Amino acid sequence: VAQPRVSVDAMGGDHGPAAAVEGALLASRELGIRAALVGPQDVLRAEIRRLGAGAELVDVVDAPEVVGMGEKLSRSTLKRRSSIQVAVELVRDGHADAFFSAGNTAACWTIAKVVLGTLPEVDRPALAAVVPNRKGRAVLLDVGANAVCRPRHLEEFAIMGSAYARGVLHVESPRVGLMSVGEEDSKGNELVREAHEVLRGSRLNFVGNVEGHDIFRGDVDVVVMDGFTGNVVLKTCETLAEFIIELVREEVEKDTRGRLGEWLLMPALRTARRRSDPAEIGGAPLLGVRGCCVIGHGRSRAQAVRNGIRAAAEFHTSGVNVAIAAEARALGLARETAGA
Amino acid sequence: VAQPRVSVDAMGGDHGPAAAVEGALLASRELGIRAALVGPQDVLRAEIRRLGAGAELVDVVDAPEVVGMGEKLSRSTLKRRSSIQVAVELVRDGHADAFFSAGNTAACWTIAKVVLGTLPEVDRPALAAVVPNRKGRAVLLDVGANAVCRPRHLEEFAIMGSAYARGVLHVESPRVGLMSVGEEDSKGNELVREAHEVLRGSRLNFVGNVEGHDIFRGDVDVVVMDGFTGNVVLKTCETLAEFIIELVREEVEKDTRGRLGEWLLMPALRTARRRSDPAEIGGAPLLGVRGCCVIGHGRSRAQAVRNGIRAAAEFHTSGVNVAIAAEARALGLARETAGA
Repeated sequence: VAQPRVSVDAMGGDHGPAAAVEGALLASRELGIRAALVGPQDVLRAEIRRLGAGAELVDVVDAPEVVGMGEKLSRSTLKRRSSIQVAVELVRDGHADAFFSAGNTAACWTIAKVVLGTLPEVDRPALAAVVPNRKGRAVLLDVGANAVCRPRHLEEFAIMGSAYARGVLHVESPRVGLMSVGEEDSKGNELVREAHEVLRGSRLNFVGNVEGHDIFRGDVDVVVMDGFTGNVVLKTCETLAEFIIELVREEVEKDTRGRLGEWLLMPALRTARRRSDPAEIGGAPLLGVRGCCVIGHGRSRAQAVRNGIRAAAEFHTSGVNVAIAAEARALGLARETAGA
Repeated sequence: VAQPRVSVDAMGGDHGPAAAVEGALLASRELGIRAALVGPQDVLRAEIRRLGAGAELVDVVDAPEVVGMGEKLSRSTLKRRSSIQVAVELVRDGHADAFFSAGNTAACWTIAKVVLGTLPEVDRPALAAVVPNRKGRAVLLDVGANAVCRPRHLEEFAIMGSAYARGVLHVESPRVGLMSVGEEDSKGNELVREAHEVLRGSRLNFVGNVEGHDIFRGDVDVVVMDGFTGNVVLKTCETLAEFIIELVREEVEKDTRGRLGEWLLMPALRTARRRSDPAEIGGAPLLGVRGCCVIGHGRSRAQAVRNGIRAAAEFHTSGVNVAIAAEARALGLARETAGA
């Protein structure tokens, strides 16, 4: 079987082409995944030379322009021959099997939707985060693409998240939870109440409402919520994780016993941080578009880019999109029958 | 000046009367705050004796019944002479200045609202969490009481959170942020867009929209959001903090160098955990009711109960409710003038 080929936006992310090129070389050497690096070709070839690599390990595809990390999207963004645009087109035209970028999330998401289109019967593609928990990993979605959702969108998210958990995380029958709040006098909002009914009637392994506590406990594989809540939760978690590791360091530096402890503990702190860092897991898959797109964290370094390229390749080989399309079609038929 | 007197639901929390009684004794001995412990008096007196304390340090007020931690609220809950009910009535009748419980949050919240009523011109009382950040502490609200909000409610939350940050956290001009998402193609939901306009026109020190990243960065003192988002975020943070400290331990236990490091680092890990633990800060004030109520985390031990009693006393002496009432009246007049 031919190894999948991943198109990589080499200009995205806080560490720019250095991290992207090195990550692509790691993916090639360590995983046998061939990357097509997309960006201004002079810049990329110079970077490849700087790293002492031969041209046989990666391909370079020229794209003269770049979408900045903090850049606000406008109509002109979508008209440019940016590295994101060209890399996504490689997937559309069959020259690559999957796409990875650590760049501007909103730009990746919008360009992917426009260039690739959505899978049939899918209304709302969603960005999914794969997070570590006590027993393995869980898929949270939507984490940013759809701030305003209806119950039928949450049902789509559940179907897509389940397909991803089954295909890529190898969970046989993914347990799906619906994010809500536990206070008895509120019981979530209208969206949650209606989505609960819809999910209960679905073919999914729906385990009911869950709360914030449950994300990291490991008793649920897919957590579904609107993109507003998901985005706030994901960003809060990223910063809290950094903050706690910082607090540990700070406390440690206060006395000699602690300083000695820190030296001894450094590898463990580093590993713990890596294990709790979503960036290290390999990025967020964009589910529901006609193609396999994974968006990495802006702070991704070479190792995280390598993992993101692997995640994009696994997304392709797992057949997740075939499963989503089949489930979405079944759902569409069921809705038609029900006259919904 | 007489020290404030705090009524304490001595039956709430995972550690029951043992933690509550010991916490009340600590508050009395270390802070000079007198507590009225409320619960079945035989149980409480036995606990006081067991701890070798004299009757002069705390008062005991009998309440025969208890609301369980996981108990669902019903109409009968509110008719019982529960420890929560009796303790809140002590505040209503002027026998106590403030109330603390580590018990059933929904029960505390509902009973406080029914027994004490809301402050004039306040539509929606809110539960506020006080969380640590890089530069001190921040107030997040609402974290659970109001799952569905309108822009005018978020404005009330902002007013109440500012008054609390000024009165209790001693921030002169609290910076208020509105929780939103950063993706350009969504820019939050309708609630956020409308609330942004309302807050921009207010007398508050409104610094604009913030994102999940900003909670722990320390550049904002009050973060306002609907109670659904707030509740999910708070519960997620609590579990993530535990999870990360656990990861550090796990990594540490993998080798001898790490084990030695762990022994040396133990005090720092404990302090970091305490510093990142909302329970340790002293609980969540319920803002907008006619009285000072603080709800602690269910897992509060004696030290956390002591801190919660202190937070309740500070809530009283700070004059926060006088400030909220004045601001709410000004807001009410402004709304009337505007014909809103």
